[in-house]
Amino acid sequence: MPRTVLVLNGPNLNLLGTRQPEIYGHETLADIEALCRAAGEALDLAIDFRQSNVEGELVTWIQDAREASDGILINAGAYTHTSVALLDALLAYEMPVVEVHLSNIHRRESFRRQSYISLAAQGMICGFQGQGYVLGLRALADLMDGKT
Amino acid sequence: MPRTVLVLNGPNLNLLGTRQPEIYGHETLADIEALCRAAGEALDLAIDFRQSNVEGELVTWIQDAREASDGILINAGAYTHTSVALLDALLAYEMPVVEVHLSNIHRRESFRRQSYISLAAQGMICGFQGQGYVLGLRALADLMDGKT
Amino acid sequence: MPRTVLVLNGPNLNLLGTRQPEIYGHETLADIEALCRAAGEALDLAIDFRQSNVEGELVTWIQDAREASDGILINAGAYTHTSVALLDALLAYEMPVVEVHLSNIHRRESFRRQSYISLAAQGMICGFQGQGYVLGLRALADLMDGKT
Amino acid sequence: MPRTVLVLNGPNLNLLGTRQPEIYGHETLADIEALCRAAGEALDLAIDFRQSNVEGELVTWIQDAREASDGILINAGAYTHTSVALLDALLAYEMPVVEVHLSNIHRRESFRRQSYISLAAQGMICGFQGQGYVLGLRALADLMDGKT
Amino acid sequence: MPRTVLVLNGPNLNLLGTRQPEIYGHETLADIEALCRAAGEALDLAIDFRQSNVEGELVTWIQDAREASDGILINAGAYTHTSVALLDALLAYEMPVVEVHLSNIHRRESFRRQSYISLAAQGMICGFQGQGYVLGLRALADLMDGKT
Amino acid sequence: MPRTVLVLNGPNLNLLGTRQPEIYGHETLADIEALCRAAGEALDLAIDFRQSNVEGELVTWIQDAREASDGILINAGAYTHTSVALLDALLAYEMPVVEVHLSNIHRRESFRRQSYISLAAQGMICGFQGQGYVLGLRALADLMDGKT
Amino acid sequence: MPRTVLVLNGPNLNLLGTRQPEIYGHETLADIEALCRAAGEALDLAIDFRQSNVEGELVTWIQDAREASDGILINAGAYTHTSVALLDALLAYEMPVVEVHLSNIHRRESFRRQSYISLAAQGMICGFQGQGYVLGLRALADLMDGKT
Amino acid sequence: MPRTVLVLNGPNLNLLGTRQPEIYGHETLADIEALCRAAGEALDLAIDFRQSNVEGELVTWIQDAREASDGILINAGAYTHTSVALLDALLAYEMPVVEVHLSNIHRRESFRRQSYISLAAQGMICGFQGQGYVLGLRALADLMDGKT
Amino acid sequence: MPRTVLVLNGPNLNLLGTRQPEIYGHETLADIEALCRAAGEALDLAIDFRQSNVEGELVTWIQDAREASDGILINAGAYTHTSVALLDALLAYEMPVVEVHLSNIHRRESFRRQSYISLAAQGMICGFQGQGYVLGLRALADLMDGKT
Amino acid sequence: MPRTVLVLNGPNLNLLGTRQPEIYGHETLADIEALCRAAGEALDLAIDFRQSNVEGELVTWIQDAREASDGILINAGAYTHTSVALLDALLAYEMPVVEVHLSNIHRRESFRRQSYISLAAQGMICGFQGQGYVLGLRALADLMDGKT
Amino acid sequence: MPRTVLVLNGPNLNLLGTRQPEIYGHETLADIEALCRAAGEALDLAIDFRQSNVEGELVTWIQDAREASDGILINAGAYTHTSVALLDALLAYEMPVVEVHLSNIHRRESFRRQSYISLAAQGMICGFQGQGYVLGLRALADLMDGKT
Amino acid sequence: MPRTVLVLNGPNLNLLGTRQPEIYGHETLADIEALCRAAGEALDLAIDFRQSNVEGELVTWIQDAREASDGILINAGAYTHTSVALLDALLAYEMPVVEVHLSNIHRRESFRRQSYISLAAQGMICGFQGQGYVLGLRALADLMDGKT
Repeated sequence: MPRTVLVLNGPNLNLLGTRQPEIYGHETLADIEALCRAAGEALDLAIDFRQSNVEGELVTWIQDAREASDGILINAGAYTHTSVALLDALLAYEMPVVEVHLSNIHRRESFRRQSYISLAAQGMICGFQGQGYVLGLRALADLMDGKT
Repeated sequence: MPRTVLVLNGPNLNLLGTRQPEIYGHETLADIEALCRAAGEALDLAIDFRQSNVEGELVTWIQDAREASDGILINAGAYTHTSVALLDALLAYEMPVVEVHLSNIHRRESFRRQSYISLAAQGMICGFQGQGYVLGLRALADLMDGKT
Repeated sequence: MPRTVLVLNGPNLNLLGTRQPEIYGHETLADIEALCRAAGEALDLAIDFRQSNVEGELVTWIQDAREASDGILINAGAYTHTSVALLDALLAYEMPVVEVHLSNIHRRESFRRQSYISLAAQGMICGFQGQGYVLGLRALADLMDGKT
Repeated sequence: MPRTVLVLNGPNLNLLGTRQPEIYGHETLADIEALCRAAGEALDLAIDFRQSNVEGELVTWIQDAREASDGILINAGAYTHTSVALLDALLAYEMPVVEVHLSNIHRRESFRRQSYISLAAQGMICGFQGQGYVLGLRALADLMDGKT
Repeated sequence: MPRTVLVLNGPNLNLLGTRQPEIYGHETLADIEALCRAAGEALDLAIDFRQSNVEGELVTWIQDAREASDGILINAGAYTHTSVALLDALLAYEMPVVEVHLSNIHRRESFRRQSYISLAAQGMICGFQGQGYVLGLRALADLMDGKT
Repeated sequence: MPRTVLVLNGPNLNLLGTRQPEIYGHETLADIEALCRAAGEALDLAIDFRQSNVEGELVTWIQDAREASDGILINAGAYTHTSVALLDALLAYEMPVVEVHLSNIHRRESFRRQSYISLAAQGMICGFQGQGYVLGLRALADLMDGKT
Repeated sequence: MPRTVLVLNGPNLNLLGTRQPEIYGHETLADIEALCRAAGEALDLAIDFRQSNVEGELVTWIQDAREASDGILINAGAYTHTSVALLDALLAYEMPVVEVHLSNIHRRESFRRQSYISLAAQGMICGFQGQGYVLGLRALADLMDGKT
Repeated sequence: MPRTVLVLNGPNLNLLGTRQPEIYGHETLADIEALCRAAGEALDLAIDFRQSNVEGELVTWIQDAREASDGILINAGAYTHTSVALLDALLAYEMPVVEVHLSNIHRRESFRRQSYISLAAQGMICGFQGQGYVLGLRALADLMDGKT
Repeated sequence: MPRTVLVLNGPNLNLLGTRQPEIYGHETLADIEALCRAAGEALDLAIDFRQSNVEGELVTWIQDAREASDGILINAGAYTHTSVALLDALLAYEMPVVEVHLSNIHRRESFRRQSYISLAAQGMICGFQGQGYVLGLRALADLMDGKT
Repeated sequence: MPRTVLVLNGPNLNLLGTRQPEIYGHETLADIEALCRAAGEALDLAIDFRQSNVEGELVTWIQDAREASDGILINAGAYTHTSVALLDALLAYEMPVVEVHLSNIHRRESFRRQSYISLAAQGMICGFQGQGYVLGLRALADLMDGKT
Repeated sequence: MPRTVLVLNGPNLNLLGTRQPEIYGHETLADIEALCRAAGEALDLAIDFRQSNVEGELVTWIQDAREASDGILINAGAYTHTSVALLDALLAYEMPVVEVHLSNIHRRESFRRQSYISLAAQGMICGFQGQGYVLGLRALADLMDGKT
Repeated sequence: MPRTVLVLNGPNLNLLGTRQPEIYGHETLADIEALCRAAGEALDLAIDFRQSNVEGELVTWIQDAREASDGILINAGAYTHTSVALLDALLAYEMPVVEVHLSNIHRRESFRRQSYISLAAQGMICGFQGQGYVLGLRALADLMDGKT
């Protein structure tokens, strides 16, 4: 049975492709989901792909993943920079966590350079648009396999 | 057909009139809604007046306004100072946005002097209690008319 | 008829006992609820015990407490450090508020040392695990009795 | 007899229309004066419209307004960010003061985000070019009428 | 034989009841001593109650407590915010330490929000006037009993 | 022939007695001038008493004092906190300079706690209302007599 | 019967005249005491002149002055910059307090520019060496006479 | 002919495997080079793998890459945090640049959280030990193919 | 007809030669004017040489230069560090601006290290006393000739 | 007759050997005194070895050393980081002063990295436990001999 | 025999003309060398023109200049902002030093606004592209001639 | 066979004796080498004495010392304050490291007060000129002998 990965998307990521494409690119969230499903197939990972605008709902999904998922790939969007609640939920999750961002957050406004998620993630990948999710799944698979 | 304006009210604004009247005045949110509806009539604007305590719900309403509204008047309440998610939703909204506050936020605690909303709004009006909403609707109408 | 106290628990506190026990101890939230109910009985306080991961829901519960409760004991969890919305809801609540934390937040990461809740609470108790709730209820009772 | 409003313009505002129109728009100060006079007529306010590059002269005009004017609408230009002297003059003025800015100062260089004027003004309006003056006069009239 | 608790009071606490009662209440230090002795009786704790204005004397008393006391309840007063020497003395004390303050120090001047004592205390209680000592003794008893 | 002292008053000090008396007291600038003239007579000092709202005019008067005055007593008002130009003029003045403030500037808003004038003054006196000028003249006389 | 003034000198002031005369001048503390006694005679004030290196002893003397003295003139020396305990003792003292420093502390190292004493003093005088004490006594007399 | 990628390693990376393995893992730089060569083969990229302890030599290699390489994968080690010279060299390089770190730099000492390299890189990957290089090469290939 | 350059001197520069010669040298402003006139002759530039202590007058002169001068050489003296009004006037001036200082401002007090003028000047020259003006005129001529 | 060195030990150093040995080692203060006496004999220095928890007593001992000692070796313990009074006493001492710390204070909490003592000491030695005192006495002897 | 000037160029300046021409212009370093040689001829200065990417090599060249050169013109490039080693080398060089930058560093990223070189240079010239070197050589000649 | 100590000297230390003797003294580096060799003989330590201006070369020498030396005495000169690369090299070195500085770096410019070297050194000695090296070797010998 394949391992399951929760791919979690934070607020406004449902707008992808239509919102500020000069920063976030032209892919829609459905495109990214398709990329993830394809990569999941290649890596033998079942993909549980979700998006929410509500911080507390994201917290609950992470809590549920303690039973349901073998790893989390998370793009917390704007909550990356403000949510200690997401950090705490991830700290309580004992399996691998990988953080991903579409843009290179180190080159943007100063309030986007700090990440609470990083404090609970094994690693971070940013700046590669949708391909970053594919790289992130690969990294998660490596972590699950004990390669890194 | 009149243009539609989404008038968005953030957390605790449903308490207006009963909460710290020395800061927020004696008008209730219903009073302000009435003021807005009267002003909307005068300016030929349909008013979609809402309030929520949930950050994610406010984000979703702004996203929906991309189809449904020709402008947004927003008093984000406490989320003004903490919500990058609201900022991102507004940045993805390409029509006029006006920020309003009941009190003059520049004269209050330091954490209330910073506004993420301002980074996505054409202008800001603060300190005029409920009349600020009326002024804000007028400013929105001017923006829609290309007067400013 | 006994006075009612709203005991409010913020995000991730539903994980207690399984999450980072070296920081938060081995008690579950159910254990703490039992402690509170026992203490409530001793102090003749009806206990309304709740938990939510959603900031806006906590705001609404505090608003409702203006009618329903004679005091609030609050452990806002991660929202302690980020939520101006909770602060504003508590400022609009005119009866006693006591803040409680399981760990001594002054000895943890710097972002956990700041509390918005404190700006609206009569007092704060931290570092005593579940017993802190019992002490907090006792403090609330004292405040209601005008002892402090 | 109509009430009198002093409309005060700080340094470099005499250059309006020719100076950085991408920030300040194409209206000249004469255009804005005309807008104010029209609005004054509509609101039954006599308009005393002035501009100076000299901080001390602006201070003196505010002092004189204690006798001569029933309210002040002020765009202090660059002195907004540096002049404690203007702040002190306004603090000694006991009638309504409204601050106005052509651009949204919250979206510009960091040294333009701080306003000493705000510490003495009932409210602030920014980002609406010349129409902001009209809104400001309306707000002043509301303040004089005790509407806000 | 009952366990002994050293109740330590820092500078100016001997003035209680006469000094700024709007902040510190009307209880005298003798009143608080009486509260502590009553609580000590209830909890089967011998109370060693002391006050000093001299930082070094407080340091010495903490050192002596390594032999003489089973726990320390400390209100270091103004030294809370400035004394690394008290911190070091408490760090060398291996039994339970509870910090108490009459007022909620988080709501006062910024220099009163930092506590060196907290870095060496299991927990902190503040804002409950003299009752805070009673709660603190109860917390100490819980700590000695291994309840927390 | 008596020595001459330039007593210099900065912006808004001409409003004394009518402006925020809870901070600045009820004396007018004329009252203070009378106090100074009386003290000058007692100390055998000719008093050149001036006030201006214009920073550059104050600078010029200090420059002129290099020929005309044996010492300067200066209350620079709001320019205390912002004027490097006044500092530079005073640094070029080689005779005694004493700084005076009506209120205790160390107890007011943080931007009033910094003084550029202090960097060029032998001493500072603040908090004694108009009597502070009398003390300042006495201090100047002591400095001229080489007593300090 | 003359009013009594406590003249309080902090650590190292007993070394005056021999310690860094380029900063503190050549007067000894005995010289300053003589100046004070002479001024006291002129102003009909009984002088209680003391010095201590021990912070707690200074605190106690201030506490005792609540019964024994009609005003305090304090040069807290190095404790000026670090002692919240002295601040608290002075805040509990309800009669006039004047702060004095031999040197102009605003022109020295940055850690000497902050004064806790100022937060409890009516006024401050600095930079006039021993004559500053004489000016300070005069200011105290004015304060006692209600002149300022 | 395959495209060429310069894989650049900064100071102390030649010690890998022997230096602080709890942070940097047990792989040697030769192991990582082998991983890169294998990945290069799979991706049809020629690998030019280098390490230097000398900042200026790294600068020169980046300059030379303008002729010789189609992309750069860089782990600048300690120079990540201090070298504006490397940043400038990369800014002058117009082809894709990917930054990689063995550990998650966001979870380490504060001086390791800032990266000058990020200001010139399309994306960053950190926290995956040697596998991060493989992911980085894949990301570079995607960038060269215009996939991201 | 020669091109015209406005050489603008800020507050206290009229004191040159007599004021702090260890910092500003022994040249008078007349000496510098002579240097400028000689250099102007050599470079075929008409020199309009002015000095004012009044910020607003300097602002007005810059505004007038939009018609009257082909370039500005400005030593704003103390206003360099505090005047946003001068910055705004220069931003509205579309021809070349060169900033000059007699001393090397980077080696002086920290408040002299920041220059608002720099934000509107093509270049800056400092540390060469009066010769800096000559170099500045040469730089202006080069800018006008399109050499740089 | 041998020269005399005052070896001064601040608060809590009397606890050495029993207090946090992982930081401060297992030597007692008596052990260190013995090391010092042995080194003193070797270097022909009379050792005056003292410890106090009271800041003011340490100040007085330093004052007395102006007559009694030819050099001071000081480990001010916690007062290192907070005592301007000790700094002032040492600044008034004109013979050599050497600062010593058992642990390397640069590797500990940030508040332990600042030393007021350093501002008055010729040199500092830290991190070598009790041997640091021996090195410090040797350094003092070198300083007295004019070797350094 | 002509005096010799070392013209020193730091990292990446060898790329001039090809690297970010919108910032650094289109001149190559060879063009600038030619400008310098022409200016050297006119000013009777022998030019020793060098560039290195290696900080330590630049340090060594400055050390050698103590014997070989009568002045240094330095554009330290990126090392301007990070190299205390270059500062120390220049502080040990006792003849004139002039700092030059192609762009106006005060208008760029904040990390480019600080210069260690300035702390050891008589003056600085920035913003005039290659002509800045010519101005710098002229300034050096003036300094050598004692004109400034 | 004696143990070997690498004595490492950073940039500009080859200039000792000729460079700013008021700070660094009159000893040359050769004098210090002789002092070290003499001390080495006394302590039975072979001395490997080196200096380089190139950061990367110093890094390499530290790496080589992992095989060749039993301890390192390092005066990193200016790199002390800027080099994370040296810190990383030292962190990878598992034998004793002692940091030495000629001057007391705590009394100099603020950028010289921070040391990256300290984060990897057992102890630090500063302020004793060349004798500091001798003390440092003695400290290293003690560390090797397990005395500290």
